[in-house]
This record gives sequence, structure tokens and C-alpha cells, in this order.
Amino acid sequence: MPREVKSRIAILISGRGSNMLALADAVREGSVPQMEIAIVISDQPNAAGLAHAQSQNLPTAVVERRGRSRDEHDRELVTVLQEHQVDFVCLAGYMRLLSSHFLSAYRNRILNIHPSLLPAFPGLDAQRQALEHGAKFTGCTVHFVDQTLDGGPIIAQRIVPVRDDDTEETLSARILDEEHTLYAEALAIVNGGAYEIVGRRVVLK
Amino acid sequence: MPREVKSRIAILISGRGSNMLALADAVREGSVPQMEIAIVISDQPNAAGLAHAQSQNLPTAVVERRGRSRDEHDRELVTVLQEHQVDFVCLAGYMRLLSSHFLSAYRNRILNIHPSLLPAFPGLDAQRQALEHGAKFTGCTVHFVDQTLDGGPIIAQRIVPVRDDDTEETLSARILDEEHTLYAEALAIVNGGAYEIVGRRVVLK
Repeated sequence: MPREVKSRIAILISGRGSNMLALADAVREGSVPQMEIAIVISDQPNAAGLAHAQSQNLPTAVVERRGRSRDEHDRELVTVLQEHQVDFVCLAGYMRLLSSHFLSAYRNRILNIHPSLLPAFPGLDAQRQALEHGAKFTGCTVHFVDQTLDGGPIIAQRIVPVRDDDTEETLSARILDEEHTLYAEALAIVNGGAYEIVGRRVVLK
Repeated sequence: MPREVKSRIAILISGRGSNMLALADAVREGSVPQMEIAIVISDQPNAAGLAHAQSQNLPTAVVERRGRSRDEHDRELVTVLQEHQVDFVCLAGYMRLLSSHFLSAYRNRILNIHPSLLPAFPGLDAQRQALEHGAKFTGCTVHFVDQTLDGGPIIAQRIVPVRDDDTEETLSARILDEEHTLYAEALAIVNGGAYEIVGRRVVLK
């Protein structure tokens, strides 16, 4: 009988890691079949998400950024990922561009989630950007990470309507609800392998 | 008994004017209450939309662009609009930036329709842009026209999913279906007057 081998996910955080916790929930509940969380890594030693991860018995590590170049930091990160036999890397509130070393070590296996319908509203404060722009719809996006900011091929998106009485807080909360299931959906696509990247389109096979 | 006074719309076209025809249908069917089409104006004497408009007994005019500055052309356009007592101007495939004279003569009364969820994919070939970018959703937008390209305050938007097997043609056709009712919806909002522009948000009162 073949042994079931699960794909191993690393989650990279810098802050409270709300998407990390949602992903952990989804894995535990079986919404991300054939995957397990290998490790949660923060570049900030004081990230609130580290304690949350530990309280759920998830392995954690800190790979500090302070005082080092991006390349040095990312090389150590790749070493830690390899030690933990990681297959996929999920960024969850990890707001850094990645070095080419990191990108090529995990080509098409690094995912990010962004709280807008990319390519609209990349970068910081995407929810506020959508609100101030007067968009009637926004949403969230999971995409492959490349050398650009929030610019890699899009795996999955969800729509969230903007209401006239929305504040940044109410809109962010409704987007977060969708984010929580979108990451699991995107990981299932990527782990299943039944897709191809045509130009920059992610097309299911 | 008060006489019913309808708001008068001018539709500006440069080509076949498919949105002009859809708007004419919507007006005839009563989907745009209290409005009537005063005139269809083309800047291209050979625009196919002119014949279509005439076949529907809509008044038409040509205000040729050829050989004149934008300002000269737009001044004649404003004169024609005023002669026809136009209240609202709808751009329908009219791919020109407007002069400040035109914009200030019809401040917040010029509308444009664009086949994407702005601010994503402004400019030409918006449907192809969405497809090539690998967006999972696109749509259409009706917005007030200002001095920017497809950048004015957004009145209404509709979502259209992008399918893996879409071509530019199939996607454009599905967006066009939505465009046909969106323009009427946006005009009803603007004509009703029960909205305000806060920053660049169009908010219903």
C-alpha cells in the first residue's frame, strides 16, 4: 500500500498572521487535501503571529532580517525551508520583495495573497485604495510570486462588493472573510498540478 | 398639471456605436425613465453608427475632427450640444480626451463606458488586456469623464468572470451584454440626482 505523502507548506509572516491562522484552520479541516503545515517563519522576532502559531502547535522559526542584505536574509530562509523539506511557500502578510535566489529555488511554488482584485490596487493599504478610488467592487487575489510587487500570475480571485457606507475596517473585514477560503482553494489547484501557465495566465487542465 | 420634462441625452460615437444602440433600446423600453435621446454625434463622417441611428429615426450630426485642434473641435461640439438643449453627454466608443472647455460646460454630466473594472485595464483593448493579464474577473464601468483617460469618478460597475477557454471575442461579447444594461442604470442614478461625489466616490443619497 503506498504511503500517503503530504505536500509541506511553509507560511511566512511579518505580523499577526491572520491568513496563516486561516490556512492552518483550512488544513486541519481538510479543505486543503494532501497538504500539511511544515513551519511558520517570521522575519520579525516579535510578530504576534508566532505566538498564535505556537498556541496551535505549529512549528515556528525566526529568520531575522535586521542588519542584513535581502540576499543574505533570503539565503538563510531558503536553507531553513530546505531543512524542513518545504514544497510550497505561502506569504501571509509578508511585505517584502524576494531575491532571485529565493525565487529560483521555489519557482512557481511561492504564493501570495493580496486584498484586492489585482492588477487594481497593488501595494500597501489596498482596501483603503479601493475605497478612496470609489471602486464598486474589489476582492482578493492569490498569485504566484515573482520579482514584481503583487504582479505574478494570478491563480484565483474572489469578488467583494464595496458598499456606500463602508469604512476601511468594514471593507477589510469582508475581504478577509473571502481571503480565508481563497488561499485554500488556490493551494489545492497548485498542489493538484492540473494547471499550466500560458503567458501569464494560470489555466486549469 | 405639470408638463413632464425629459432630460435630453447626446450620444457621441466614433464607430459602430453598439452602446449607442443599446442605450436607444433602453430608452425606448423605459429602462431609463425621464430621459430621451436628443442627438447622436459622430466625429467620423463614415461611422457605421450614424446609419444605425438614422434607421432608428434618431437625429444625427457629424462634427468633424479632421484638420482642427481639439479645442476648436470641442467648441463646435459644445455649440451643437447647446443648440440641442442637451443635459447629459454619453460617450459610446468615443476614444478622445476632452478639452477643458467641453468638460467645464458639462461638469459631472459627461459619462463614459469602459469594458473593464476600472482602474484595471484602462485604454485600448481592455478585454484583451484582462485576458492576457490572466485576471479571473473583469467587467465594465460607467464613470464621469474628467481630464484623465478612463479615470473619472465611478458611477456603476458590473462583474464578468473570465473563463479559461475565453478568447478576446467571447469575453468581449459577455462584457457587452452587461454594458448594455449598465449604461441605463448609471444614467438613472445621475438623472435622479440622488447622489453626491465625495472625494472621488460616487455615493447614493
